[in-house]
Amino acid sequence: MRNVMPRYVLKIEYHGAGFAGWQRQKEHPSVQGTIEAALAKLEPGDHKIAAAGRTDAGVHGLAQVAHCDLVKDWDAFRLSEALNFHLRGQSVAIVDCAQVADDFHARFSALERRYLYRLISRRAPLTHDRGLAWHIKHKLDANAMQVGADRLLGRHDFTTFRSSICQAESPIKTLDQLRVEELRLPHGTEYRFHVRARSFLHNQVRSFVGTLERVGVGAWTPDEVSRALKARDRAACGPVSPPGGLYLAGVTYPEDPFA
Amino acid sequence: MRNVMPRYVLKIEYHGAGFAGWQRQKEHPSVQGTIEAALAKLEPGDHKIAAAGRTDAGVHGLAQVAHCDLVKDWDAFRLSEALNFHLRGQSVAIVDCAQVADDFHARFSALERRYLYRLISRRAPLTHDRGLAWHIKHKLDANAMQVGADRLLGRHDFTTFRSSICQAESPIKTLDQLRVEELRLPHGTEYRFHVRARSFLHNQVRSFVGTLERVGVGAWTPDEVSRALKARDRAACGPVSPPGGLYLAGVTYPEDPFA
Repeated sequence: MRNVMPRYVLKIEYHGAGFAGWQRQKEHPSVQGTIEAALAKLEPGDHKIAAAGRTDAGVHGLAQVAHCDLVKDWDAFRLSEALNFHLRGQSVAIVDCAQVADDFHARFSALERRYLYRLISRRAPLTHDRGLAWHIKHKLDANAMQVGADRLLGRHDFTTFRSSICQAESPIKTLDQLRVEELRLPHGTEYRFHVRARSFLHNQVRSFVGTLERVGVGAWTPDEVSRALKARDRAACGPVSPPGGLYLAGVTYPEDPFA
Repeated sequence: MRNVMPRYVLKIEYHGAGFAGWQRQKEHPSVQGTIEAALAKLEPGDHKIAAAGRTDAGVHGLAQVAHCDLVKDWDAFRLSEALNFHLRGQSVAIVDCAQVADDFHARFSALERRYLYRLISRRAPLTHDRGLAWHIKHKLDANAMQVGADRLLGRHDFTTFRSSICQAESPIKTLDQLRVEELRLPHGTEYRFHVRARSFLHNQVRSFVGTLERVGVGAWTPDEVSRALKARDRAACGPVSPPGGLYLAGVTYPEDPFA
């Protein structure tokens, strides 16, 4: 029987601190579970939402995308307002919402995911950006990091940059962008890593950034990044950078569901 | 007897949430008390530091300035590093430090204070910027707010925009800048108020912003701002905006003590 419940797509912003990650868990608060609980306030019963990317504990969302099926024919704006009412005080916000066709799937229809990683280099600890960026005390060479990043572009076996618990069927992915941006701050420097691919392996972006930071400080050469990639060995990876600097920044579909 | 203890100036960044304000209090955590406790870890005994501006509970510091007298002849960089070590985990950071002449006073030597106020207009609640900006749901007219702001420039009796508990001797101040900046966000609009004066009355910036928000939404005309100013009556003020949007952004001295 065809599913006749109307389907909605949600664009979701969240602060990763305080959540055990996107995915619902019995014992710990999750972003998915928090939104499903808000949906249950609107329409009683069990709700299961599917997201474009499952983010780890501490990782943030700027424009996570998920879809849900509801019984009622909701006006999209009213649905987002009602959800935000029930999400109040939880550091999760619905920033956009639209009704979509039954065959839209937030995960399987996605053509591209975009991530942002924020790294702040300064002597003093962070205050307003605590938990929102990776803090290091030493200076980095942004040009060297970009040269190293360029070695990772294209289609490769990314076993080196993949968590041992990654559940993807294949370690072969195509990396479309890994751009290093340098921003002068009043005190220190921020490095932003802009990363784009159709899909990612578990911990792939954080493994990239942790490895490139080694290049930025001069401990690794860009050639060593190439060698690590070719090794196809998790042990060849640099340190994995902390989750608080990572943001799921956007998802692309064949047609913009929010347009 | 001349004070022969060397004097140091500190540039301080802090997140206002979790503090009862700058000023030391017996029962509640304060920024001043937190830094004085860190100083006591370096040199045992009572420490009293003086700041350029006493910020209220929830108000942030980007570049608060304070001075302290110490017994030891500290290298300024080592002093800031040692203080940051003892401030770790507290959302207070020393971002600059220098030794200064005995007659430098963070409060009395200051020629100008600069404040920033962040207001974000969007339907969804804030996540990463919670407590770091004032959140409103309706749109504002930035041009109208700027016209209203211009009515406040110059030397005036600012009794209308002064808290009833303000301890300043005179309500007459000279406002040198009140500039409204509009920034498009991916979802919503941010309005930044840049305010400069030699000194401010208690709650003056938050009283300005709360009043100008009324202009931005169309509830007040710029002429009504002029009338409120001329009334010299606290009751004529618009609502006082919340503390979390306010940042002490900088202090100017005859010579830059950090140069």
